[in-house]
Amino acid sequence: VSAAAVEFWFDFASPYSYPAAMTIEARAAAAGRTVAWRPVTMGPIFADLGWNDSPFNLQPAKGRYMWRDMERICAAEGLPFRRPDPFPANSVAAARAALVALDHDWGPEFCRQVFRAEFAEGADIAEPSTLADLVARAGGDPARALSDAVSPDNRPRLRAAVGHARGRGIFGVPTFLVGEEMFWGFDRLDMALGWPA
Amino acid sequence: VSAAAVEFWFDFASPYSYPAAMTIEARAAAAGRTVAWRPVTMGPIFADLGWNDSPFNLQPAKGRYMWRDMERICAAEGLPFRRPDPFPANSVAAARAALVALDHDWGPEFCRQVFRAEFAEGADIAEPSTLADLVARAGGDPARALSDAVSPDNRPRLRAAVGHARGRGIFGVPTFLVGEEMFWGFDRLDMALGWPA
Repeated sequence: VSAAAVEFWFDFASPYSYPAAMTIEARAAAAGRTVAWRPVTMGPIFADLGWNDSPFNLQPAKGRYMWRDMERICAAEGLPFRRPDPFPANSVAAARAALVALDHDWGPEFCRQVFRAEFAEGADIAEPSTLADLVARAGGDPARALSDAVSPDNRPRLRAAVGHARGRGIFGVPTFLVGEEMFWGFDRLDMALGWPA
Repeated sequence: VSAAAVEFWFDFASPYSYPAAMTIEARAAAAGRTVAWRPVTMGPIFADLGWNDSPFNLQPAKGRYMWRDMERICAAEGLPFRRPDPFPANSVAAARAALVALDHDWGPEFCRQVFRAEFAEGADIAEPSTLADLVARAGGDPARALSDAVSPDNRPRLRAAVGHARGRGIFGVPTFLVGEEMFWGFDRLDMALGWPA
């Protein structure tokens, strides 16, 4: 990670990660920063707290607020929005594919394609055929990427990412890290990008 | 509540309610809005979820982030900050006193005095003698205010406030309401003030 990079930790199942993913590159460029994409799955970290579901489902009032807030945020950002069903999506396959994709220059575009499919198009991002289509849209080789995603070499990478997230104190996403300085939530993106590297 | 008013729901034990309370009147005035102060205690609402402590204590990683974030926010807002001990404060007596204070024009200043005592001066806001001093600082009659605060007429008002908060879907504070449009968190204050009445 270069000094000017902002680490962007996200889960494909996370609603507020969607507007973050769609806008972070343009905002970072305007701020003279680069983005290090860090896919993770929050399920194991939530499980540490005894949670077996999204906090937005476990806390219905918070969930109702979040869906309304997502409508407002996406409207303000000019992003299409459709509430995913089921929620939360199983994001493990997409995260494994993203770790492979991010070894290539089409990685960030693949991540945006996944978020758009899930939060704007009603697609099921747990489906391998959906992920294959999104790899192709991003400019990658679908068969090779999905084969690499489930390979014995790649599976431990997602587990390692979860371990890194836990070890750095990440408790929710999106989280932006500038060095060890942490910013949690889409509404903190601009503050993170303005934080001295 | 007038059309231009923003309802400000807060708990004296809530860290992010402190910068909200200290800055909301100036921000609202700049936005052409007025503020309706709504003290509440979140304990009973958290208890609905099975929580018997602050979420910042129940989730240690989130708590660590919050304290660092409070340092940053208070520095940015020019507010002194000292981590309260114990945390969370028992805010019931202060909330009852605030309901009395807000029947008078010195109510908002009393609320700010409570937050300042707790988050900048290390005072125990559960102490009647502390609250008496803060009433005096705000321009009220301490003996009368504290007597009214614990009167049989006043105690049900705090319970009613909790019931209203629950009924309107409040799940955390500070929360800002513009009509039924909800904004949660200090970082949403300016968005709330800009929302059409």
